[in-house]
Amino acid sequence: MAVSGKLRRQMAEGGWIRKMFEEGIALKKQFGEDKVFDLSLGNPVLEPPEEFRRELRKWVNTPVSGMHRYMPNAGYPETRAAVAEHLSASTGLPFTLNEVIMTCGAAGAINAVLKAILEAGDEVIIFSPFFVEYIYYIDNHQGAARTVVADENFVPDLRALENAITPRTRAVLVNSPNNPTGVVYSEETIRGLGEVLGRKEKEYGREIFLVSDDVYRKLVYDGIECPYAFHYHPATIVTTSHSKDLALPGERIGYVAVNPSYADRAELVNGLVFANRVLGYVNAPALMQNVVRVLQDASVDIELYRKKRDLLYESLVGMGYSVVKPMGAFYIFPRSPIEDDAAFVRLLQEQRVLTVPGRGFGSPGFFRISYCVEDRVIEGSLAGFRLAAKKCGLRG
Amino acid sequence: MAVSGKLRRQMAEGGWIRKMFEEGIALKKQFGEDKVFDLSLGNPVLEPPEEFRRELRKWVNTPVSGMHRYMPNAGYPETRAAVAEHLSASTGLPFTLNEVIMTCGAAGAINAVLKAILEAGDEVIIFSPFFVEYIYYIDNHQGAARTVVADENFVPDLRALENAITPRTRAVLVNSPNNPTGVVYSEETIRGLGEVLGRKEKEYGREIFLVSDDVYRKLVYDGIECPYAFHYHPATIVTTSHSKDLALPGERIGYVAVNPSYADRAELVNGLVFANRVLGYVNAPALMQNVVRVLQDASVDIELYRKKRDLLYESLVGMGYSVVKPMGAFYIFPRSPIEDDAAFVRLLQEQRVLTVPGRGFGSPGFFRISYCVEDRVIEGSLAGFRLAAKKCGLRG
Repeated sequence: MAVSGKLRRQMAEGGWIRKMFEEGIALKKQFGEDKVFDLSLGNPVLEPPEEFRRELRKWVNTPVSGMHRYMPNAGYPETRAAVAEHLSASTGLPFTLNEVIMTCGAAGAINAVLKAILEAGDEVIIFSPFFVEYIYYIDNHQGAARTVVADENFVPDLRALENAITPRTRAVLVNSPNNPTGVVYSEETIRGLGEVLGRKEKEYGREIFLVSDDVYRKLVYDGIECPYAFHYHPATIVTTSHSKDLALPGERIGYVAVNPSYADRAELVNGLVFANRVLGYVNAPALMQNVVRVLQDASVDIELYRKKRDLLYESLVGMGYSVVKPMGAFYIFPRSPIEDDAAFVRLLQEQRVLTVPGRGFGSPGFFRISYCVEDRVIEGSLAGFRLAAKKCGLRG
Repeated sequence: MAVSGKLRRQMAEGGWIRKMFEEGIALKKQFGEDKVFDLSLGNPVLEPPEEFRRELRKWVNTPVSGMHRYMPNAGYPETRAAVAEHLSASTGLPFTLNEVIMTCGAAGAINAVLKAILEAGDEVIIFSPFFVEYIYYIDNHQGAARTVVADENFVPDLRALENAITPRTRAVLVNSPNNPTGVVYSEETIRGLGEVLGRKEKEYGREIFLVSDDVYRKLVYDGIECPYAFHYHPATIVTTSHSKDLALPGERIGYVAVNPSYADRAELVNGLVFANRVLGYVNAPALMQNVVRVLQDASVDIELYRKKRDLLYESLVGMGYSVVKPMGAFYIFPRSPIEDDAAFVRLLQEQRVLTVPGRGFGSPGFFRISYCVEDRVIEGSLAGFRLAAKKCGLRG
């Protein structure tokens, strides 16, 4: 047996997005690229903003000696300081470079955090529907994922959270704006989360980290604010990347930020740097660290995503789909018109529309649409959504 | 407690290189950068070759739509094919892109391999002196590192290896050219290794992988050949990066190559791609994947390293140090003139010469010098090496 038994089981179970991806490739071969409407992946269609291209050209056309060498494992101090300055301005909190570690994307950030804080068997609570990779990230570091079902608006159910916390709970991992629902947690929700964690920390005499995956933070619509969790719980860690706001997912550049009001932050940051190193990331890619330094306030044009959301959301509602309106990110998570979400996704696939069943996110009975695609893909998919709706008794 | 107990213990134990690094910073502040001779780190002083700069400018000045997006987790097919072509030409074996996965450096490659193949408790054999990070990489995936002491020429002792293999042995991890010794394993040694593994696989009815960390492969001197392990054991996996040959350690670009003559390679490669993904690497940095595609035969000017080696080796031998002549990489691993290698490293430090004690590599009684530095650093260190030698009864 070439791979471990555990990995083989994980590969067999966890492949919904990949499965859709592969079936999509086959469909595209059969019908032609432009006849298949692939809404299954979160791979941003937008190009990086012009400031990014300019800054990248500057570094590459006037190279500096040593710019591709190792730097300290935490990243270039200048980049960490720039991130800290951005966070201080955004939060009003006194961030310094000592609270920031540059990482290989948000996935690298979350893995470094879990490696640093988890003892084997420690529990990490996530809310379903969840980004499926969380399950693997937690397992990588011998943690145990505990799922709490979010409420009907895809918002954390605080009473259910309180009941789920045990003496082994080490962290709660949240994601807002959310993949796969597009929901943004309100200040009230996050304050409530912080209060629950504070109470439970006292009850069990053990720190419980709030790990907030903020990777879609800048992708919010209709003037909504995405509150920072730092204000509501001292042991808060934010993980993020420039994959979405600068449209750089392939370049693996992100960071971890630790709450300046968390007392043991020096030890935590040392642990994060060590974890970043020994997990084999070593450091975030050097050139990208240099480039993003001056781009902390930059972003792709969010309006383009907002228009895609509006087109898709209004069309789906018009067809009779039941769906929570996304406030951010670039996903929408409608209820499946039939109980079996996988069967419904197959129905859509027959119309050459590719989506992912909710069970891939721990929430059967729903399906995820990713709308970070060309408008023509969304427009082309609508006939398929309509036909599938009709077949399932919706108005269509 | 902000970090896990295990991580805290690891951080306390494993910090020799880091300790030297930090004391070096303090010394440099005290005496001035040019009065401290830092031979403690493997951070290549050479700049990337001109072909690299040219190719990078090409990609950045004439960008292609989508070039910063996600690609398949295994990497761009074109880059994997280019690596395969290079490997086929170098080995005479029929590599295709299906045997190659692009990774975040060799560290990312080794971690993906260990994640893919290890069951909890599986043993991985390494030879001391070893690259200290191996210990952490093996532990990351619940493996147990088993150390076999290399012979007096720092070459694997095959009899000791044979005795160390148990029914739980899953892999032997070798590194040639070697960090910290600079030794290159001969064809005879690798053939012998393959024979031992073949015999033990039969005896225990279990596959034993030979994982060969080839990161210094192109850095060999005096016309020596560095044989490929693929020829001597079917279950061979090579991990490597462009950190040394193209002087890009900060950019985290490397790959895993699986032996085309390994029968279960399809399953293994699927497992490696999955491991690369769920460990949070997701994919190797996109821009660098594009750039290194046409640089598979490129390299920094090895002659520059060879001259540094000669200067240092001949000087040390002249002073009476006992040392195996390095054939590759950019390290030299002399015997400490006194039993306590940490005390000897302190003696050198008093002369503002920074090295790392052998105990940091599992081999007390030696010390490591890293010569990937400016010539003036090597030249400036010689007086310190001479004085420390004299103090310990060598001719100096």
